[in-house]
Amino acid sequence: MKKSTGLPEKVIVNDSFWTPIQNMMIDSVLPYQIDVLEDKVEGVEKSHAVENFRIAAGLADGDFYGMVFQDSDVAKWLEAVAYALQLKPDAALEQKADEIIGFIGKAQEADGYLNTYFTIKEPEHKWQNLTECHELYCAGHMMEAAVAYYETTGKTVFLEIMRRNADLICKLFGDKKGQVRGVPGHQEVELGLLRMYDATGEERYLKTALYFLDERGRQPEYIAEEIKNRDWYHWCRDQDPIYNQRHLPVREQKDAVGHSVRAVYMYAAMAELAALTGDKELAQACQTLWDSIINRRMYITGGIGSTVHGEAFSADYELPNDLIYAETCASIAMVFFARRMLEITPDGEYADIIEKELYNGILSGMQMDGKHFFYVNPLEVVPGVSGILPEYKHALPSRPVWYGCACCPPNIARLITSLGKYAWGENEDIIFAHIYLGGEVVFSHKDGVRILCESGYPWQGDIKYTVHPVNKDVEFSFAVHIPGFCKSWEVRINGRKFKCDLSKGYVYIKRCWNTGDIVEINLEITPGRIYADPKVRANAGCVAIMRGSVVYCFEETDNGDNLAALRILRDSALICKNETLGNIGNTVTIETKGARLQSSGTLYSDTPPESVPVLLKAVPYYKWGNRKEGGMRVWLGEI
Amino acid sequence: MKKSTGLPEKVIVNDSFWTPIQNMMIDSVLPYQIDVLEDKVEGVEKSHAVENFRIAAGLADGDFYGMVFQDSDVAKWLEAVAYALQLKPDAALEQKADEIIGFIGKAQEADGYLNTYFTIKEPEHKWQNLTECHELYCAGHMMEAAVAYYETTGKTVFLEIMRRNADLICKLFGDKKGQVRGVPGHQEVELGLLRMYDATGEERYLKTALYFLDERGRQPEYIAEEIKNRDWYHWCRDQDPIYNQRHLPVREQKDAVGHSVRAVYMYAAMAELAALTGDKELAQACQTLWDSIINRRMYITGGIGSTVHGEAFSADYELPNDLIYAETCASIAMVFFARRMLEITPDGEYADIIEKELYNGILSGMQMDGKHFFYVNPLEVVPGVSGILPEYKHALPSRPVWYGCACCPPNIARLITSLGKYAWGENEDIIFAHIYLGGEVVFSHKDGVRILCESGYPWQGDIKYTVHPVNKDVEFSFAVHIPGFCKSWEVRINGRKFKCDLSKGYVYIKRCWNTGDIVEINLEITPGRIYADPKVRANAGCVAIMRGSVVYCFEETDNGDNLAALRILRDSALICKNETLGNIGNTVTIETKGARLQSSGTLYSDTPPESVPVLLKAVPYYKWGNRKEGGMRVWLGEI
Repeated sequence: MKKSTGLPEKVIVNDSFWTPIQNMMIDSVLPYQIDVLEDKVEGVEKSHAVENFRIAAGLADGDFYGMVFQDSDVAKWLEAVAYALQLKPDAALEQKADEIIGFIGKAQEADGYLNTYFTIKEPEHKWQNLTECHELYCAGHMMEAAVAYYETTGKTVFLEIMRRNADLICKLFGDKKGQVRGVPGHQEVELGLLRMYDATGEERYLKTALYFLDERGRQPEYIAEEIKNRDWYHWCRDQDPIYNQRHLPVREQKDAVGHSVRAVYMYAAMAELAALTGDKELAQACQTLWDSIINRRMYITGGIGSTVHGEAFSADYELPNDLIYAETCASIAMVFFARRMLEITPDGEYADIIEKELYNGILSGMQMDGKHFFYVNPLEVVPGVSGILPEYKHALPSRPVWYGCACCPPNIARLITSLGKYAWGENEDIIFAHIYLGGEVVFSHKDGVRILCESGYPWQGDIKYTVHPVNKDVEFSFAVHIPGFCKSWEVRINGRKFKCDLSKGYVYIKRCWNTGDIVEINLEITPGRIYADPKVRANAGCVAIMRGSVVYCFEETDNGDNLAALRILRDSALICKNETLGNIGNTVTIETKGARLQSSGTLYSDTPPESVPVLLKAVPYYKWGNRKEGGMRVWLGEI
Repeated sequence: MKKSTGLPEKVIVNDSFWTPIQNMMIDSVLPYQIDVLEDKVEGVEKSHAVENFRIAAGLADGDFYGMVFQDSDVAKWLEAVAYALQLKPDAALEQKADEIIGFIGKAQEADGYLNTYFTIKEPEHKWQNLTECHELYCAGHMMEAAVAYYETTGKTVFLEIMRRNADLICKLFGDKKGQVRGVPGHQEVELGLLRMYDATGEERYLKTALYFLDERGRQPEYIAEEIKNRDWYHWCRDQDPIYNQRHLPVREQKDAVGHSVRAVYMYAAMAELAALTGDKELAQACQTLWDSIINRRMYITGGIGSTVHGEAFSADYELPNDLIYAETCASIAMVFFARRMLEITPDGEYADIIEKELYNGILSGMQMDGKHFFYVNPLEVVPGVSGILPEYKHALPSRPVWYGCACCPPNIARLITSLGKYAWGENEDIIFAHIYLGGEVVFSHKDGVRILCESGYPWQGDIKYTVHPVNKDVEFSFAVHIPGFCKSWEVRINGRKFKCDLSKGYVYIKRCWNTGDIVEINLEITPGRIYADPKVRANAGCVAIMRGSVVYCFEETDNGDNLAALRILRDSALICKNETLGNIGNTVTIETKGARLQSSGTLYSDTPPESVPVLLKAVPYYKWGNRKEGGMRVWLGEI
C-alpha cells in the first residue's frame, strides 16, 4: 500500500490572493482563537476547552464545561498552528502549542484513553455512547493535529500520545476476537487514523479506518443496537439513520444524505482508502456519491447541505437560496473529499470543485477582519426575513463573533494554512498543479524538483512556473490543471507555444526538464453568465455571474433594496472594473445593464409591473456582508 | 345601539355553484362529523368530544380526553347544524342536536360554568389559565352555536344555557368592583358575546366583549401577569405577546401579526363593535389592520398567515408559496372580518374579499368528496418536498382525512351552511347584495321584501333579481355589488338599460319597487393575468391566472413535472374550455401557449436552458389535489 497522499515535501506560499489571508490567519485568527479557547476574551461565550484538559490532567480543579466535543476545538487549533508554523516560524505560538500538548499528554489515561468529557465527568460511560458523545470524533481530530504537528516540527510527543490513543481504539474496535463492534456517530476518526497511517506506516490504523467504514450500515446496525441496549442518552433518544449515513452499507449508498459534514468527512475517508488500497468498489461508491452532490445537490458557490434541519442534504435539485444551510465546514469537507478523489483519478472536475469551494463557499465564511464567521452561507439575504423569521433564524445577514464551541472558524484556519496540500500533488511519474498557488514547492520527485509559481490568479489568468530539477535533463510530466470554466487558454514553454490537448482537465507537459525552464499558462478569464438546470426550482429563469472561479453577488448597498425585483438583460455586456469599496478594499466589480420591476403600490394587479433600466453592480460573493448590512442575491431573474 | 348585523329574515339557497356544496355538507359532512365526534368512525383518531360532555354531565364514567379546546368541535358542529336546518329541515339531525344540547345542559355547573376539561379534570384551576386553556374560546363558540340554534329552531334551551354562561363571564371579568381582570389567550368569546347581544339585546354582553378587547395589551399586560403569578402551565411556560396580539392595546395595533385565526377573530369582533357602537377610533384601527392584510400580507387566494411557526402572519410581502400556512380557518375568519367591515362601510373592497376567500382559499380546504380537508393551503406543491422535507412537513400535497381535533372542517361547515349571512345585508334605507347567491331572500324591510336571485355565477356573469315588495310602490335602494375584477358591466331594470355609476363598488338602484320588478346584472367575466407587487419576492417575474374571482392553478397531471420550468407567454390568448376532468367533474379550464425550460442535464451551465413551446392548462385552484397527486403552482414565470 502506498502513502495516502502524494504531497510535496515543502510549500512556501507567496500568493497575491492567499498570502494576505494566510497572514491574517496566523497573525490574527490563531492568536484570537487560543485566547478564546483559554477564556481570555471578554464578551465571548466561555470555551473552557483548554481548561478541560488542565482539569483532566490534574493540573486544575473544576468540572468539565462545554459541548461533549469541546476537545476538538483544541485539536483543530493545534492542527492549524502546525500548518501556520510551516508557513511562518513563530516561537511563541510553538511554545503555546507545546504547553497545551503537555496538558493533553497528562490528560491521557494510562491505557491511551483521551477525552476530557468522559475522564472528568462520566468515566463509567466511556465508549458506550458512540452515537452522540463524539469520543471517536475528537480522537480523529487529535490524530490529524498530532500528525500535522509532527510533520512540521519533527517533535514526536503529540504523535506518540495519539499513537497510544489510536492503538487503544484499534485494539478495542473491530470484528476480531476480543474486539467490540463500533461505529462513530460523527465520522472523523477514519480520516484521523489514515493520517496516523500516513505518518507511521502502521497498517492497523488503515485497517481500523476501513473497519469503521464497512461496519457502518451493516445489519444489525450498530448504532440502532447501541441505542436499544443503552439506558441513558446524552441529547436525544433516537436518531434518523439517514442523519449520520448508517442507513445502508457505505458501498451501497447512492445519494449524499444526512448531516453534510458527517457525510463528506466519510466520503473523504472512503476516497482516501480507495486511493490507498486500489479498492475499485469503494472508488465507485465515492464517484456515485460525488456525482450525487455535484450533479444534483450543490450550490453554485460549492455550498452543500440545503436544510438547517440536521444541517443536511435534502433532495435532488432542492437548493433554496434563502432557507439554505451550506455550512462553511461542509464546503471545507468537500475540499478534503475532492483532494482525495484526485488521488484516485487526476480529473480536473475534482480540482474545479476545490477552486469553487476555496474562492466562494469557504471564504464567504469569514469576515474580512478575520474575527467574524458564518456557519451558514446563504445565497439570498432578505432584510427583515433572514436571521429573523423562524424559518430563517439560522441564515444570518451578518457574521457573528466567535461562538462558544466554534466548529467552522478553526476549520477554516486549518484549511487556509494548509493550502499547499491542495495545490500540488505527485505520483511516480507526474507532478500535478491542481490549483494555482503562488510561491515555491519542493518535491522529492526524481531526486528533487523545485517549482516556483507566480500568479495573479484568480483575478489574472497569467501563471508562470519556473522548474528547477536537482539534476539536469530529468524527464517527468508536469500536469497543470486548466480550470473547467476556461474556454480559451495557451501554454508556452520557455516562451514558445506548446501545443497540447486537455486530458481530463489537465495539460500534461512531458519532457526533459532543465533548471530554469519556464512554463507559462495563459487563461482567458472573462465574466460570464451561469444558468442552473431548470430542475432547480429556486433558480429557474435566473442567472448568476461568475468571473473564472469567483461567483459574484448583488448587494443592496450597491443596487438598492428589494433585489428580487432586479433583472439582468440577457445580452448586456458584463463590464469589469477595479474599484476600492469600503471594507472590502480593492475589488474587481462587474457592472451590467439591468432592469428593476417597479412596485405598483398594489399587492395584486392586472397590469404587469413597469420595468425601469438600472445599472447593476456585482461584487465577489465571498466578500458579501462586509459593508452595510442589507439584502444580497447571487441569482437574479433574466429578461 | 343597533342590531349587530343587518341580516335578512330568511334565505333559501338555490345556486348552481353553492347548492351542491351545501348539500354535500348537509348530507355527508355533518353526519360524518357527528360520527367522528361520537367516536363511531373506525380508523379516525378518537375525538371523545361528545363523551366529554356525557362524563361532565354525570351520564357516563371516564376521564376527559382530547385537547383542552375539544368542546369547541361540538359547538361548531351544532352551529353548522343550525344553519343546515335552515337550509333543509332534517328531524333526525335536529333530534341528535337536541340530545347533545341535553348533555351540555347537564354538564353545566350550577353557577353557569361550562367547560368539560375543567369540570372533569381540573376543577380547582378554573379561569386561572386563560392564556392556554381556551375556556373563553370554547364559551364563545358555544354562544355562537346557541344563538344560531335558537334563530333556526326557536328553541331556547341552548340559548338559556349559554345565557347563564355568558352572565357568569360578564359577572366575573371586567374592571368594575368585584370583578377580575382577564383576557382570552385565543380570541373568540368576543364574537360569541356579540352574538348573544344580538339575540338577547343584553347590553352587558356587548360591554364585556368591549372589555375583553380593550383590556388586551393594556399595561401591566394581563396574560404576562397571569403567567408570572401562576405556578402551573398547560403547554408552554411563556409565549410571545405578538402571538396572540397582546403586544399593544388593540386600538394601537397597525400590523396584522401573530396567529392569524386569533388575530382575525379579534379584528372581526372589533369591527362588529365599531359598527354597533359607531366607535370611530375602533373602526379606524380595523381599517388599518385590514389594510395591513389586504395590501401586504395576503395571498392571491385570500390565504393569510404565511408561516407555520405560530400559524402566523410573518412580514410584509413575505408570501412564500411553498412554505405557506394559509390555514383554511384563517380564510374563514377573513370572511367574518370582511362581513363586519361591510357593516361599518358598504365598500366593495370588503365584498371582493368575501368572494376571494369563498371561491379560493376556503373551498380549497375541502376535497370534492367532502371527506378530506386541508388546514394548510399551499400555492406551490413540489413532489418530494411538500409534506416531506422538514420545512415543508405541514404543506401536504393531498388532503388528509378528519383529524382527532379538527378545527377547520367544522369551520368550513358552519360557513358554507350560512352563506346567506354574507350574501345579503340591509340597513334602514338599503338592501344589499354583497355577493351573488342564487335563491330567495326575505327582508323585514319596508313591511317585507322578497328577492329572487338567479345566477350562474361565478362561471357566468348574468345575474337576475326579481323583487317582490309586500306593498306596492315602495321606495328603497337596492345596492348590488359589482366585483372589483369586473371591467365591463351593465344593469337592466325590467329590460331597460339602467345608467349608473359605481359608488364604492356598488350600484345603487333607488326607485319605487313593484312586485315582479326585474334587475339584470351582466358582468364581463374573462380570464386575465394577475401580477403581484414585485416586493413579493416569491412572485417577482411571475404571473397568475384568474377568471373573475376564481384563481387558477397548474397541476402536474395536466402540465407534466417540474412546474417551475414552465413559462407563460405574456401575449398568448387565454382560452376557456368546458371540460370534464376525472374527479373534478365539469370544469372551466384555461389553456394558453407557454414554454418549458428544458433541463440541460448539467446542474450549472454557461448555456441558457433551451425553451420549448408547450400548451399549458390551468384548472380552478379550489379544485386542485382532487386528481392524481403531483406538483401544483399558482404562479408561473412569464416571458
